Amino acid sequence: MTAPARKACIIAVGNEVVHGFIVNRNAAWLAQELALVGFDVQYHLALTDRLEDLTYRIKSALAEGLLVITTGGIGPTVDDRTREAAAAALGQPLRLDFDVLEKLKERYAAMGRKFPDGSERQCERPEGARLVPNAFGTASCFLARHGDGGIAVLPGVPREMRGIWQEELRPALLDEFGLGARWFSRELRVFGMPESDLNNGVRDLLENRGAEGAILVDDAVIRLRWRVQAADEGDADSVLQPILDAARERLGELVFAEGDISLEQATVNALREAGMKAACAESCTGGMIAHLLTNVPGSSDVLLESIVSYSNESKQARLGVQPETLEAHGAVSEQVVREMAAGVLSGSHADVAVAVSGIAGPDGGTADKPVGTVWLAAAMGDATRAWKLHVPGDRELIKWRAARTALNTLRLAALKGGLPEKIAFWTTPP
Amino acid sequence: MTAPARKACIIAVGNEVVHGFIVNRNAAWLAQELALVGFDVQYHLALTDRLEDLTYRIKSALAEGLLVITTGGIGPTVDDRTREAAAAALGQPLRLDFDVLEKLKERYAAMGRKFPDGSERQCERPEGARLVPNAFGTASCFLARHGDGGIAVLPGVPREMRGIWQEELRPALLDEFGLGARWFSRELRVFGMPESDLNNGVRDLLENRGAEGAILVDDAVIRLRWRVQAADEGDADSVLQPILDAARERLGELVFAEGDISLEQATVNALREAGMKAACAESCTGGMIAHLLTNVPGSSDVLLESIVSYSNESKQARLGVQPETLEAHGAVSEQVVREMAAGVLSGSHADVAVAVSGIAGPDGGTADKPVGTVWLAAAMGDATRAWKLHVPGDRELIKWRAARTALNTLRLAALKGGLPEKIAFWTTPP
Repeated sequence: MTAPARKACIIAVGNEVVHGFIVNRNAAWLAQELALVGFDVQYHLALTDRLEDLTYRIKSALAEGLLVITTGGIGPTVDDRTREAAAAALGQPLRLDFDVLEKLKERYAAMGRKFPDGSERQCERPEGARLVPNAFGTASCFLARHGDGGIAVLPGVPREMRGIWQEELRPALLDEFGLGARWFSRELRVFGMPESDLNNGVRDLLENRGAEGAILVDDAVIRLRWRVQAADEGDADSVLQPILDAARERLGELVFAEGDISLEQATVNALREAGMKAACAESCTGGMIAHLLTNVPGSSDVLLESIVSYSNESKQARLGVQPETLEAHGAVSEQVVREMAAGVLSGSHADVAVAVSGIAGPDGGTADKPVGTVWLAAAMGDATRAWKLHVPGDRELIKWRAARTALNTLRLAALKGGLPEKIAFWTTPP
Repeated sequence: MTAPARKACIIAVGNEVVHGFIVNRNAAWLAQELALVGFDVQYHLALTDRLEDLTYRIKSALAEGLLVITTGGIGPTVDDRTREAAAAALGQPLRLDFDVLEKLKERYAAMGRKFPDGSERQCERPEGARLVPNAFGTASCFLARHGDGGIAVLPGVPREMRGIWQEELRPALLDEFGLGARWFSRELRVFGMPESDLNNGVRDLLENRGAEGAILVDDAVIRLRWRVQAADEGDADSVLQPILDAARERLGELVFAEGDISLEQATVNALREAGMKAACAESCTGGMIAHLLTNVPGSSDVLLESIVSYSNESKQARLGVQPETLEAHGAVSEQVVREMAAGVLSGSHADVAVAVSGIAGPDGGTADKPVGTVWLAAAMGDATRAWKLHVPGDRELIKWRAARTALNTLRLAALKGGLPEKIAFWTTPP
């Protein structure tokens, strides 16, 4: 019914990657994209600029019938050896494309810049290879078939690489190879449940339902993912939809999104749908709640302000926290976060507010309030509710988890039209 | 004079990595760590859980005399095949370590948890391999020598992997292999200069000085890195120090740090050394300036507050921006950012304040003020100064660059004890 998936590998080229000065984020991105056009990625490699190595590895992959996608090593300098290696592995000479060179020179001229020495190399490709134009940079790319597979050469700069993939290489691959049996995947995102409980709760849905299921944990956000090989989306969904429906039925509001949607995006969506405006008062999260929300386009529709009060004076002056409350209970306390939440709510005229105050460390912890002690409050109308969080981890992780818990609180308040009771499993009501 | 560097490769194991659902950040981290103990990394690989593949690749690497470091695939499930593959590649049987198993069972008992089925597998290692204890998780690790190289097996969870490396594997490697000729690297970080100018300005320092020089660009932050192979730090510095001194001499205050220090850390350091307190007023950066500053431990010494005003009402109520100013010039204007900066300075009693208002997009741009138009102001005492930025990129990049420019403004104000004139090459004074 479905054609066998074609196989691919991804090779990142560059000393900087191999020596660890750059994290190779391209491979993961390309692997997911390749799956969608019917190539099953077998492995990723990162190689130095050494020509012999590069040639040998590309040749081996071609001999296995793989489609090789390379990133990096196609710039104008002598360290850029990917073109040569591809040509050698294919057994073809490199040819300069004079039309491409002419256009590149025109682009430099239009910018009023001198054409740099050695940049001609960026217009070369192996004889018989198909041009993959690069509107995002100066290095031209190419695609060459070889046996069941072939090789496609992309730049290493992520934005440039992604642009060329979307605009040029993906259509060229579909043109050359057709659309085979593809991998389709769907994913639910869950916040606020322990991984072990989730695992037990959905184990039967991860296995034996005709799809490969997996649980991926990214700190407090858990991704439930299923993938299946199918001819088209309809066939895939006939397997995947019942699984997703069953998972949603069991998990309820713990599921904040389907697919590649962040918790902050889901929060903005929920607030917008509820027609609610939000405000925040942040101490230990230090602006991160607002930063996450404002990463979402259109968040100005739902966020009025966030007061990052990193001093007691600011908590008093901006949020109306009483000096006596700070004196009696300390800045990390139920009473102070309730006053912070109520203060920012009334000052901003928002519909819902959250406030966070905690000890992010590494200093500042006490026996009574160790590092990771975080108080969170929400306010709507005249009501406030507070939770105590015990957040494990270092400073950045404590900020990260506390900020996400605050986002989830806003999301649940918008969904329910009122203050939620349970916001995450690591909180205890006061 | 120096012993030859030993060679290594890094293999990440797991379908999730190869299919692109997880970015492999471990390889870059390990490559840098391996260089410091005298291993030159030749390549990185990411492989699926298929036993034959894993075994073949490990065996090939061992045959080349490499030290193979694997991450992932050592958990309790049947998909975890790294132990078996390592044993097969070494030609040794797997043995269960009953002492390790006993201790693991005690740990479960102490937590009041049942010992999970199949977890015995996590205590196995190839005969003759050395135990690398894991205090950070439940999967025991190991190191086995083979010819000039060998294999060390680590978990895939980054925190666990790093902890075991630091506490156990690094000392074990030094014990087994001694300390050879190591790679030492030093790095300067530069903000606010175009890459091409920087390249031209220091090209002679990147080449022909006895060290490998490189320029790495991470958006607006540029890293100038040199590495050299030497027996010890003293030998390395005799080559590297004169290069760094020359670069600092040329670049002056554009250099914000040496080594792995972020711009936010450098900003906090500069403010602390100047004994200055800062405050921020953020519109388009949406809390990111404060978020970055508060990632730095001890930032509460220098940051009083940040007012994230995402609405005109908030700008008026919290920062004292005049309704007439907003009406006449719009929220993204020189006049408004000056009032924002002056407002947060006087409200917070800080020594220095920055304010940012711009159009981060994707919507909201006009012919007059396209997406990427950002106004930034700084205030000290009674003085304010403003700059207009033209920031290319998408929403997150515009936030990112504007926030970093604001950090650099605070840093320069602290260094100079007054308002700086030039804060980055992409700004124009009004």
